[in-house]
Amino acid sequence: MINEQTAGVFTIAVTPFLPDGAMDWDSVDRMVNFYIEKGATGLTILGMMGEAGKLTADESIAVVQRVVARSTVPIVVGVSAAGFAAMKTLADAAMDAGAAGVMVAPPSNLRTDDQIIGYYHNVAEVLGSTQFVLQDFPLATNVIMSPSVILKIIKECPTCVMLKHEDWPGLEKISTLRGASDAGARRISIMCGNGGLYLLEEMLRGADGAMTGFAYPEMMAQVVAANNTDEARARDIFDAYMPMVRYEAQPGLGLAIRKYTLAQRGSIAHDTMRKPGGALSAAARIEVDTLAARQAIKLKKLGL
Amino acid sequence: MINEQTAGVFTIAVTPFLPDGAMDWDSVDRMVNFYIEKGATGLTILGMMGEAGKLTADESIAVVQRVVARSTVPIVVGVSAAGFAAMKTLADAAMDAGAAGVMVAPPSNLRTDDQIIGYYHNVAEVLGSTQFVLQDFPLATNVIMSPSVILKIIKECPTCVMLKHEDWPGLEKISTLRGASDAGARRISIMCGNGGLYLLEEMLRGADGAMTGFAYPEMMAQVVAANNTDEARARDIFDAYMPMVRYEAQPGLGLAIRKYTLAQRGSIAHDTMRKPGGALSAAARIEVDTLAARQAIKLKKLGL
Amino acid sequence: MINEQTAGVFTIAVTPFLPDGAMDWDSVDRMVNFYIEKGATGLTILGMMGEAGKLTADESIAVVQRVVARSTVPIVVGVSAAGFAAMKTLADAAMDAGAAGVMVAPPSNLRTDDQIIGYYHNVAEVLGSTQFVLQDFPLATNVIMSPSVILKIIKECPTCVMLKHEDWPGLEKISTLRGASDAGARRISIMCGNGGLYLLEEMLRGADGAMTGFAYPEMMAQVVAANNTDEARARDIFDAYMPMVRYEAQPGLGLAIRKYTLAQRGSIAHDTMRKPGGALSAAARIEVDTLAARQAIKLKKLGL
Amino acid sequence: MINEQTAGVFTIAVTPFLPDGAMDWDSVDRMVNFYIEKGATGLTILGMMGEAGKLTADESIAVVQRVVARSTVPIVVGVSAAGFAAMKTLADAAMDAGAAGVMVAPPSNLRTDDQIIGYYHNVAEVLGSTQFVLQDFPLATNVIMSPSVILKIIKECPTCVMLKHEDWPGLEKISTLRGASDAGARRISIMCGNGGLYLLEEMLRGADGAMTGFAYPEMMAQVVAANNTDEARARDIFDAYMPMVRYEAQPGLGLAIRKYTLAQRGSIAHDTMRKPGGALSAAARIEVDTLAARQAIKLKKLGL
Repeated sequence: MINEQTAGVFTIAVTPFLPDGAMDWDSVDRMVNFYIEKGATGLTILGMMGEAGKLTADESIAVVQRVVARSTVPIVVGVSAAGFAAMKTLADAAMDAGAAGVMVAPPSNLRTDDQIIGYYHNVAEVLGSTQFVLQDFPLATNVIMSPSVILKIIKECPTCVMLKHEDWPGLEKISTLRGASDAGARRISIMCGNGGLYLLEEMLRGADGAMTGFAYPEMMAQVVAANNTDEARARDIFDAYMPMVRYEAQPGLGLAIRKYTLAQRGSIAHDTMRKPGGALSAAARIEVDTLAARQAIKLKKLGL
Repeated sequence: MINEQTAGVFTIAVTPFLPDGAMDWDSVDRMVNFYIEKGATGLTILGMMGEAGKLTADESIAVVQRVVARSTVPIVVGVSAAGFAAMKTLADAAMDAGAAGVMVAPPSNLRTDDQIIGYYHNVAEVLGSTQFVLQDFPLATNVIMSPSVILKIIKECPTCVMLKHEDWPGLEKISTLRGASDAGARRISIMCGNGGLYLLEEMLRGADGAMTGFAYPEMMAQVVAANNTDEARARDIFDAYMPMVRYEAQPGLGLAIRKYTLAQRGSIAHDTMRKPGGALSAAARIEVDTLAARQAIKLKKLGL
Repeated sequence: MINEQTAGVFTIAVTPFLPDGAMDWDSVDRMVNFYIEKGATGLTILGMMGEAGKLTADESIAVVQRVVARSTVPIVVGVSAAGFAAMKTLADAAMDAGAAGVMVAPPSNLRTDDQIIGYYHNVAEVLGSTQFVLQDFPLATNVIMSPSVILKIIKECPTCVMLKHEDWPGLEKISTLRGASDAGARRISIMCGNGGLYLLEEMLRGADGAMTGFAYPEMMAQVVAANNTDEARARDIFDAYMPMVRYEAQPGLGLAIRKYTLAQRGSIAHDTMRKPGGALSAAARIEVDTLAARQAIKLKKLGL
Repeated sequence: MINEQTAGVFTIAVTPFLPDGAMDWDSVDRMVNFYIEKGATGLTILGMMGEAGKLTADESIAVVQRVVARSTVPIVVGVSAAGFAAMKTLADAAMDAGAAGVMVAPPSNLRTDDQIIGYYHNVAEVLGSTQFVLQDFPLATNVIMSPSVILKIIKECPTCVMLKHEDWPGLEKISTLRGASDAGARRISIMCGNGGLYLLEEMLRGADGAMTGFAYPEMMAQVVAANNTDEARARDIFDAYMPMVRYEAQPGLGLAIRKYTLAQRGSIAHDTMRKPGGALSAAARIEVDTLAARQAIKLKKLGL
């Protein structure tokens, strides 16, 4: 199970499809292996970048079962849903299958502090004893959670054990939350997203690791590992990947870039996305290839 | 099947729950009878006001099957979903069960004309030969469709046979669309929503009827019927109901008011809403009761 | 000066323009007289429905000076602005000219409770000793203020003496705020907007009056006056105006309807709006005329 | 005057304030010199990052006059306003003072294609013969312009001579617009924003230069210059600045970072922002300083 001390690198997994849009189960297996080999200490599936909304209820459960069966690391399952009945159905199925926890993003219609806090009270009640990750991703959800809101959820919902941090800007939020736990608030795990674009500073501010899906999971593993021992080296590694991190950070387009890269790296067979969502243009593929080539040279210089 | 000439009153049905939140199947049956007795010439289920998002995938299909089996009038099924796979699963199940068509609202992230039109192209492709209703409800979806966008969808998606019109303001839109079909564009059915708050003017502008869920479906039936024969009487009836129509039009709260009234009228056993969504305050119940009492007196004077 | 006990009917004034878009100063004078003759006990100028954003800084000040000079009732001036420097310039000029207070709506980018409260702290600081009205109008501003946020502003900003209440739904909010002041919170004036569509219920919930611009200000005056003495008569009057209140409530279009009616009633010379914003269609004018004719008959029956 | 062929680097200027929030005119002068010395071939003032909304109407005109008088390069003036009257007043004053053109961002309430196009028709009419820049910055304005909308504005508004491109992602948009002008559409200048985060790819896609305010304007100058002669060197330079570009790209916080850096570099005396808007935390200042130190080393290796 995930808990308040969970640290490391949870890769946000894509969902591989065949060219006709059907599930690509072989690639699911290969992808799980790939992520773990590259340093993932956990996986998060059925997140936004896992095209969760494009799956049927039955497919979602099948993905959980396949990944959990294959994986040697803990699996967090995104269970965000339009309603609590669907959320509970998926969460229960996921935990039954052996998941380590679930993740819930807020629906985009939440606005006030009370609405957000009330929503997570309902989430906690619906999920029962299942430990969950609070996803704070305003750019995608359009829900803004101030630190005081997060702290109130932490205080009032004991099964909330982790924050998927991807507010932007978000560095002060990490400092504020860590300041609060230093001052006696319950400490929960903070795992950072946003494709890793601020990972180095996030670790220095007190984050526990990364939970994001950049197509080079080894970047997160290397930066997180180096961070505690050799900050200069962590920065060198981080900078080497940064042009690509930045390129993949393009909203909407990012998943196409990510799937293209994962396919190029042999992690999945096809870069297919379900509709809506298309393939990279020829120009974009050249841009990715150029960045990848330069990145490889820089990493070689760093002995990686 | 619904088609481009469909007219009348399609009541947007609620979904009845037992006090513990479970489906109340007895009330489903009673409600279907009630709506039809009060003048509904069709029903629309699993819409926003049907708490569709709060049902599991399995419950949604069960509701369709139950209602279709019970009803003597055509049933339109809301199949709006986060992704096309879930939409197709529900739509296919609905049509297999005997539904007369489906309804699709746009996801709230659509912004540009091209995005909206592209979305409905995908919808039409996913639904195949199933005829669908385009739901235009900006207050709820946050998606604004200009008349030219609707006309382009009408032109390019032949299975789009009906507009659920609830833009606000929306009267000019009806006139524009009717002007376009008079000038040669394909004519589709325009059925109006917004709780009926502008129903009289909408009919005069060229709408074919109402598709909304005001807890007194007879209002829509009476206004639509009287409209063509005796406008003054249609206005008298409309005005008699207006204080209540207006009261029920409160967004968010409206469904609680509607369920309370339906329960008071014996259509459903309980006014329970699934979370999030609560009961009316005591003050609100008094307000509804007062409006209902005055409304009854006014209707009596009109011989209704 | 407005204060925490202010009650009555503050009409939201339009800004009259000549057909070429220039200020129509004669109509400003006539309009002030008209509003007061029809029962306004105060006026609010340069609000959203006063096309404040379409005036230059110099024009805004000129409007304030002209209206204040003409009026025999207190004038509240909308000073909402993109920045505090512009807000202060206008507020100072307004108070120097003899205004009774100012009104501030929140900028649409505010989301969290802390952001909203922090904004009004800045407002209060910028305005100094000037008493201000907090405008709570989510449909227009896209800013949602929970009761606890409003109560915090009331507590921490003593120069906030009035709430322009136009949340929708908003009846429970009135009850909550009045419950809080009954329990010891500072009581401020609550004046209701939304074109008067819920005025009767708002008064029964504890509001102090209306601050809205329905083109028949006598409706608000009559309903507010009758409310305390003869609720049934207040309801009869309210119902008589309701079809028109409802028609004018159409967002965006409402101001064109209002200006058309005011011009028909002789309050202003032209129904011109500055761009963007156009004239009513011929069909809409007929709709207004028809509603006005029926309304006149109903009012006559009521002896009005 | 700016025109359809304008290229180079237009730096988005900050507005310098004294610690008490008053205009810092000495810093205005110094800043103009600094930007030009660092390679700016033009300046854009009173943009969003120039805190334009926080100035009074009179201050805005004073800033234009001061900068134009001081500058040896063309000045573009942001004239976005809530209404056209204020826009015209500022634009006329700016052009009278000797500005080279104006820039207009869309108001955040525009949604449909027709609304956006209609708005810019009004803009063009209001501005008369003044050439203007169309600012396409959805992250800040919440207005999404599809390429077809921009092309329609280009076609129908001949005084629109430049696009300030900061859609995100936006690379395909540049390609689409350049493809359209290759195919016969009027070609306008495309100057790129977003702090320069995608500048290299943007130039390769066909942009004419940068119009953004990264606190190291020499980056844009060097990348734009090198881009045509030595792409590998352009990439080396770009990569050296990227950790800082990325850090400054944090929305909201970015301006504080930028002003801090400009103050550190001696371009302005104080990093003061007018409210709302505060100073960097100690942790953030350390992060900036660390990035600046590493950046200096990398640039030295590149002979810069």
